[in-house]
Amino acid sequence: MAAPIEFYFDFSSPYGYMASTRIDALAAKYGREVRWHPFLLGAAFKVMGVPSMAVQPLKSDYSRRDFERSARLYGIPYQLPKDFPISALAPARAVTWALRSDSAKGKALTAALYRSYFVDGINIGDAANVVSIAAKAGFDAAAVEAGMADPVVKEALKTDVEAALAKGVFGSPFVIVDGEPFWGMDRLDQVERWLKEGPF
Amino acid sequence: MAAPIEFYFDFSSPYGYMASTRIDALAAKYGREVRWHPFLLGAAFKVMGVPSMAVQPLKSDYSRRDFERSARLYGIPYQLPKDFPISALAPARAVTWALRSDSAKGKALTAALYRSYFVDGINIGDAANVVSIAAKAGFDAAAVEAGMADPVVKEALKTDVEAALAKGVFGSPFVIVDGEPFWGMDRLDQVERWLKEGPF
Repeated sequence: MAAPIEFYFDFSSPYGYMASTRIDALAAKYGREVRWHPFLLGAAFKVMGVPSMAVQPLKSDYSRRDFERSARLYGIPYQLPKDFPISALAPARAVTWALRSDSAKGKALTAALYRSYFVDGINIGDAANVVSIAAKAGFDAAAVEAGMADPVVKEALKTDVEAALAKGVFGSPFVIVDGEPFWGMDRLDQVERWLKEGPF
Repeated sequence: MAAPIEFYFDFSSPYGYMASTRIDALAAKYGREVRWHPFLLGAAFKVMGVPSMAVQPLKSDYSRRDFERSARLYGIPYQLPKDFPISALAPARAVTWALRSDSAKGKALTAALYRSYFVDGINIGDAANVVSIAAKAGFDAAAVEAGMADPVVKEALKTDVEAALAKGVFGSPFVIVDGEPFWGMDRLDQVERWLKEGPF
């Protein structure tokens, strides 16, 4: 079986959320697994010397409109949260913890967090909200809380983000297939083409 | 007949070049005309407070790879010019001049300039090169040169770029259809969907 696809996403990213609802099914069609990586866009913006597009004049208005239009087009429930953008650190730590014990659990927790943020409007930048969302999704609240505070987990996230930057990851979603980088929800068609027909 | 589509492009933009080879045929399929607007990304970057992606760490490497991959995918001749990025002011003035006398001539001059830059590698940021490319494309060299220096033409470009910014244009290519904005070569599929089926 071919190597897994690497999938990077930031918890403050609407396009990352949308891609997370599709990437596993897309990969499975071509017999591929997907390795999920919570990413921190803030770290990339620092290297790039730019602010988040969510706060850039002109682009921010357009992107808000495009988030909604994309969600309608793909049939994905979505509404812009009141608190936007947020720091993805707390949910990224929780998911890093969950992924370390079980990939499927990490993905399930990601889905619960993304839904809570982009459908229910709950601020997942707040660690207490992350814990209660995880508890509702069937995780042990105390274990999640301890996991998020564990220096090993914190370091694992930091190391993974640095490794991602070193591979050239700078956006969300960002997909690497057989070493080939694809940035953006609107590159999933090209990811599928690559999986189906190989390099182009 | 429905209102024309507005098409904005910057002469330093590979995606703008690629879109310029397709937008008229796409619109014609649905009985639409296209109004072309040379745009100055530099003016947008100033408002947004960001540098060109061509010089941003991480994004610049990715975008160079994506330019080539996109060109291969769409079957459009392309190679990254030695001088990149450039100021689009000189070619934008020449095309503003040409468009004012005749829309078809303005589009033909745009095509000649884009090809010279993204296929032949000639620096079209240089006004003398713009004039010689225009001459080879059948324009009168002295008339082009006078047009580029004409204060009325300079002012017309400035006014059009300001009007574009006021409408929210910030990228290249940027297309407005029936008031709906679409940014990027990878939104032409959505532009087509809009033309075919209306709002979504």
